[in-house]
Amino acid sequence: MLTFTTNQLDALRATLANEIPISNSIGLAIASFDQNGLTLSAPLAPNINHKDTAFAGSLNAVLTLAGWSMLWLIVYTEAIPAKVVIQDSTIRYLRPVTRDFCARCRMPKPGEIERFLLMLCRKGRARLELQAEIAEDGTIAVAFSGRYVVQTPRADPF
Amino acid sequence: MLTFTTNQLDALRATLANEIPISNSIGLAIASFDQNGLTLSAPLAPNINHKDTAFAGSLNAVLTLAGWSMLWLIVYTEAIPAKVVIQDSTIRYLRPVTRDFCARCRMPKPGEIERFLLMLCRKGRARLELQAEIAEDGTIAVAFSGRYVVQTPRADPF
Repeated sequence: MLTFTTNQLDALRATLANEIPISNSIGLAIASFDQNGLTLSAPLAPNINHKDTAFAGSLNAVLTLAGWSMLWLIVYTEAIPAKVVIQDSTIRYLRPVTRDFCARCRMPKPGEIERFLLMLCRKGRARLELQAEIAEDGTIAVAFSGRYVVQTPRADPF
Repeated sequence: MLTFTTNQLDALRATLANEIPISNSIGLAIASFDQNGLTLSAPLAPNINHKDTAFAGSLNAVLTLAGWSMLWLIVYTEAIPAKVVIQDSTIRYLRPVTRDFCARCRMPKPGEIERFLLMLCRKGRARLELQAEIAEDGTIAVAFSGRYVVQTPRADPF
């Protein structure tokens, strides 16, 4: 069972705030981590659009960061000096988001993290596909799938 | 041949700045409009990430807005009181973006705009898929495809 300590979540919080400054403009915060996954949150106000709902670009940014943060926590907790980058993603905007919102990256399936870490250990580079979503009133409003690549300094460049 | 006047581009500029406030944090600007398409730009500094390259979420936001702006200009120029929203998108991050960047929404193929406007006129709602990209040193660094929906007030809700 994957768990992270308060210190590890604090390290993620500092990394997001310091290394991805636009996350401060978005108002990004770490909402929770539990057996369902990692949840980031953002207020509607700075992310509002022409229809008084959340701007698609902000929704995508918070979902992209939810997946990125999940992988960042995994490699940080394993003390692996690796960089996490997103390779590609697909997003479906199913309903407008009308309030402050949360983006939840789902916990990878059992065994996926172990296979991912084994590949990273063997090859210095590994990929993981993560699913994330934003729900409102119990219904999925935005569905996101992203493929991330993690690479240690010793791996060959792409 | 699709063309827009300076006044129409100024109206787009004001709309982006006033109705999508996060675009100000991103540093979004309209760079150009010509036969190749509509180009938006953003500086690297506010959009930087942990690798000192452009944050994927910012790249996606500027590409999403490049497509949105193309459609906004088309319906504004036709004086159609319609709202433009994005339905879904796919993005591939092929290379890091290391400098200030431009997102270019390609001009739709001949006939596509006319078919789109005819559908909008008949049904009050129409979809258009747009391609956009960010290039650096002549090579595509980020490739984006987005499907947008335009709806007039008289159309039935989704």
